Amino acid sequence: MSEAAKTLDGWYCLHDFRTIDWITWKMLSSEDRQAAIHEFLGLLEKWNSVQNENKGSHALYTIVGQKADFMMMILRPTMEELNEIETEFNKTKLAEFTIPAHSYVSVVELSNYLPAGSDEDPYENPHIKARLYPILPQAKYACFYPMDKRRQGNDNWYMLPMEDRKKLMYSHGMIGRQYAGKVKQIITGSVGFDDYEWGVTLFSEDVLQFKKLVYEMRFDEVSARYGEFGSFFVGNILKTDSISSFLHVN
Amino acid sequence: MSEAAKTLDGWYCLHDFRTIDWITWKMLSSEDRQAAIHEFLGLLEKWNSVQNENKGSHALYTIVGQKADFMMMILRPTMEELNEIETEFNKTKLAEFTIPAHSYVSVVELSNYLPAGSDEDPYENPHIKARLYPILPQAKYACFYPMDKRRQGNDNWYMLPMEDRKKLMYSHGMIGRQYAGKVKQIITGSVGFDDYEWGVTLFSEDVLQFKKLVYEMRFDEVSARYGEFGSFFVGNILKTDSISSFLHVN
Amino acid sequence: MSEAAKTLDGWYCLHDFRTIDWITWKMLSSEDRQAAIHEFLGLLEKWNSVQNENKGSHALYTIVGQKADFMMMILRPTMEELNEIETEFNKTKLAEFTIPAHSYVSVVELSNYLPAGSDEDPYENPHIKARLYPILPQAKYACFYPMDKRRQGNDNWYMLPMEDRKKLMYSHGMIGRQYAGKVKQIITGSVGFDDYEWGVTLFSEDVLQFKKLVYEMRFDEVSARYGEFGSFFVGNILKTDSISSFLHVN
Amino acid sequence: MSEAAKTLDGWYCLHDFRTIDWITWKMLSSEDRQAAIHEFLGLLEKWNSVQNENKGSHALYTIVGQKADFMMMILRPTMEELNEIETEFNKTKLAEFTIPAHSYVSVVELSNYLPAGSDEDPYENPHIKARLYPILPQAKYACFYPMDKRRQGNDNWYMLPMEDRKKLMYSHGMIGRQYAGKVKQIITGSVGFDDYEWGVTLFSEDVLQFKKLVYEMRFDEVSARYGEFGSFFVGNILKTDSISSFLHVN
Amino acid sequence: MSEAAKTLDGWYCLHDFRTIDWITWKMLSSEDRQAAIHEFLGLLEKWNSVQNENKGSHALYTIVGQKADFMMMILRPTMEELNEIETEFNKTKLAEFTIPAHSYVSVVELSNYLPAGSDEDPYENPHIKARLYPILPQAKYACFYPMDKRRQGNDNWYMLPMEDRKKLMYSHGMIGRQYAGKVKQIITGSVGFDDYEWGVTLFSEDVLQFKKLVYEMRFDEVSARYGEFGSFFVGNILKTDSISSFLHVN
Repeated sequence: MSEAAKTLDGWYCLHDFRTIDWITWKMLSSEDRQAAIHEFLGLLEKWNSVQNENKGSHALYTIVGQKADFMMMILRPTMEELNEIETEFNKTKLAEFTIPAHSYVSVVELSNYLPAGSDEDPYENPHIKARLYPILPQAKYACFYPMDKRRQGNDNWYMLPMEDRKKLMYSHGMIGRQYAGKVKQIITGSVGFDDYEWGVTLFSEDVLQFKKLVYEMRFDEVSARYGEFGSFFVGNILKTDSISSFLHVN
Repeated sequence: MSEAAKTLDGWYCLHDFRTIDWITWKMLSSEDRQAAIHEFLGLLEKWNSVQNENKGSHALYTIVGQKADFMMMILRPTMEELNEIETEFNKTKLAEFTIPAHSYVSVVELSNYLPAGSDEDPYENPHIKARLYPILPQAKYACFYPMDKRRQGNDNWYMLPMEDRKKLMYSHGMIGRQYAGKVKQIITGSVGFDDYEWGVTLFSEDVLQFKKLVYEMRFDEVSARYGEFGSFFVGNILKTDSISSFLHVN
Repeated sequence: MSEAAKTLDGWYCLHDFRTIDWITWKMLSSEDRQAAIHEFLGLLEKWNSVQNENKGSHALYTIVGQKADFMMMILRPTMEELNEIETEFNKTKLAEFTIPAHSYVSVVELSNYLPAGSDEDPYENPHIKARLYPILPQAKYACFYPMDKRRQGNDNWYMLPMEDRKKLMYSHGMIGRQYAGKVKQIITGSVGFDDYEWGVTLFSEDVLQFKKLVYEMRFDEVSARYGEFGSFFVGNILKTDSISSFLHVN
Repeated sequence: MSEAAKTLDGWYCLHDFRTIDWITWKMLSSEDRQAAIHEFLGLLEKWNSVQNENKGSHALYTIVGQKADFMMMILRPTMEELNEIETEFNKTKLAEFTIPAHSYVSVVELSNYLPAGSDEDPYENPHIKARLYPILPQAKYACFYPMDKRRQGNDNWYMLPMEDRKKLMYSHGMIGRQYAGKVKQIITGSVGFDDYEWGVTLFSEDVLQFKKLVYEMRFDEVSARYGEFGSFFVGNILKTDSISSFLHVN
Repeated sequence: MSEAAKTLDGWYCLHDFRTIDWITWKMLSSEDRQAAIHEFLGLLEKWNSVQNENKGSHALYTIVGQKADFMMMILRPTMEELNEIETEFNKTKLAEFTIPAHSYVSVVELSNYLPAGSDEDPYENPHIKARLYPILPQAKYACFYPMDKRRQGNDNWYMLPMEDRKKLMYSHGMIGRQYAGKVKQIITGSVGFDDYEWGVTLFSEDVLQFKKLVYEMRFDEVSARYGEFGSFFVGNILKTDSISSFLHVN
């Protein structure tokens, strides 16, 4: 058996994609729509308080194309909290006018393919803590996709010796570094939680950087031989003060 | 032909995943909702009686993400009983507000890859009986996924000699043992019953152990070369006294 | 080109799986439900007459899990009759409360991989006739699944010489024989009729025998290297005098 | 690069599969149903006129099983006409009671794997014209399926030299010839038009011949190594004077 | 790691496919339908102004078969504008009578497999600018499909050295050139944006040229060994002055 990679695990994460049922939404009276938006903004305020106390984080993005209309990405210390938030949203008035489009359950993850650290407890390292319990950036664009490491014929990641995986991941990481400052990347692990092994969420001020980064990585052996990718979602930030106009209908 | 693994088979098992139709549920009057919950609690009471008499077992978990809202896992001595329970639930008031999301039909299974026992009838061995007819734990978290052994090119489990499969399963089992006390695992066989060959249900007080266990196993040759996995479902225990609040809407 | 297997073909076969729309079914008045059931029982009576005259056969089973609620398996001498029966059912009152869940179109098939017979016309051999035009047993359990022979890389059934296929099928058949008296198996061919190449319908008084048979066969080279399987459906017999109680709602 | 096969292309072709919504159809008054049928028969009359003028052809078949209730196969000189016919049907009363089940867009195709002809323009050859612009037979049974030539590992049709493909197609064609008089086959090309590379439509007075033909071909290297098949649809002719009874409900 | 191809990127692109819900559309009063069409024509007028100012482009095509009824292809300088256009359409009256059928998010892309240019900034080259920010032709026919470069066993595009990819792409491009004047091709990159790596949109006055081009390319090694294709959509131009008649119902 190959040596398993060790991971550090932070906040649990729910990506919740929704499509808006514009037909029924328009059937509501303007007052009822205002009330629904107001209730949703109240929910966001609660989430903001949590984030201000560093007990979680969240982000809202509209999604381009028909896969979804918007995405809520939620980070919390426990799986129960994710479930509660999801259920609380499902019980709102606004949720009656959204259709579940996709979701993904995972946990913020750092892996030990990077050089080993000192003896100190990594969970006490402030740099690592900031990455395990990240406050999500208010970047203009976000991109989400799930992925697996391939186990197919001669291209079986999980049969490679740790040493080889380490080298491969090292050069893979080098590509990522070239995008430092341009793309922020949050890796969440989902083995045992959802259908792929990882979720990747990218943030940037320049949406083209998502394409450049993912495309460049695809030529790297880690992706070229061992990457299996699910659906890609891309979108624009949905700021709190734009929600009303996003949901405004005549 | 390779020698087939022999199995011991216990209670039949139905995993029944449901999504709640919150829109129509909210349309009900508060009284009607109470009546529906009351009726469902009555069903649970019946199931509890069966469990108290050791004639079956069951567990309820909410599911994180959009794949389902809750899951009922039911164990019974016969396939007829599973069918009756499913039909009885389908006829309840509550069921009118749930949408079938996924199900899985299987039977609790122990396989003979472990060292052979004595001459005694294994079905009379109390340790084995406890595993074939298990009372499900009230663990905080559960995880379910179905799986196949791969039959693909050079990675064909069913073409391996029994001796090789035994060795592979032995070291695979060793990983599981490291999680003894942390994760309880129930394997159910579904060849001839459902679309994968096995269902795996994990229970734990620490949801992260699901990820650690499944990930570590993935580096083991049995999973790395021969495992094919279906969808993963993860969730939190739904205790009887939380059902009302879970289903409470304004 | 490899020599094609010759087949003997009997009655055409429709497996018709339905899910019951319990919500709308409950909305009906008790009288209307009775009338719908009565009409359906009349259809069954007609089918019984056909069966009594040896001009076809049929079976009804409830299905465990969410894939379907019940299954009608119909055998008839012509494809037109299957189509008429399907359409006649679709026009009934009961059908308004069922949702098509799955179907499979095929024809009872015997293949010539078994040792060649005498000069006599096999269609006149009473033993063969009984297998081509079978009256379906009233077994407690049924199992259905479709399958293909694989054509993939080095595992290409259709590129094997007839002699090899014959040998492989012979040992495959030997497994089946060990289940004689325990499992009755009806093979229906569906090349040109539906999405897989064969349908397999198993009948037994012991549902566990389905698992044992299919699992044991999976270690045989015919299945291990060359079998591709579709969805599995398993269920309990739905006798005519249980239909009312199966469909009974308050 | 391998030399591409040249094709001759005739009429454009739309296979349009529909499921009948019997529930809402039954809700119509008998008069409204008659009017809807009458309108549809008027459409058929128009199509008959076109066919009589040799400016297109069409066929109607009911489909066995749940994939669809009936299929309209339409041939026309231009893609615009197919689109207009589809839209015209969609605007009829009857269409309100049908649910799109499947469709396929292609063009009647002859390929040059057959021995090269003389210098004459093949589009002027009456034998070829009859095949490129065929009047569809009124056969009792029809079968439709789409297919690809495989491009997978060592089984890559498109990497084979023209000479090899020609030989393979020649022996493949020999099988088809044995069915001359029993099965009429119309090949339509769909590269660039729909999800597979070809559509195959078979017509016969004996539905079993579809199974025999497709099964025998499957042992031929062209299908065994290089064929990838989509869904199969099989059905019975729906003659104009049977439409009323097919659609009759109480 | 293989050297990644560099790309030039132009306008962002949304392909938005819709199916018309003719049943509810017909339920509208004639006035309401006129108003809905009028509102949609107003949207088109806005899009025309943008196009006239060279700040974007768009095209409308009806789609043959059941995959969709029409397709809007939209080009804009930013991802936000695509999202706004999509949302604005979703809020129209007409959108209430359309069902999302498919969409694709990408960006106009030129790749550097072609011989390297001079030192000049390619984004300043008028020929390149015309290709990165193209005004879509009013061709009679359009065809859309997404595609990937394969990463499978020995057929792994992303593991090939740049030099090999360049040669392969060069001969691939030669095929395309033979269709110059017959087919206009717009390649859009979608790595990081949608589920395939590229979208291909073809325009022509002769729909058969789509089939000829795609089929001929399939014999080229780039497609034969390395191409993976998604769904194909083909259709006829929907000119502004035909929209009313296209949507006209009695």
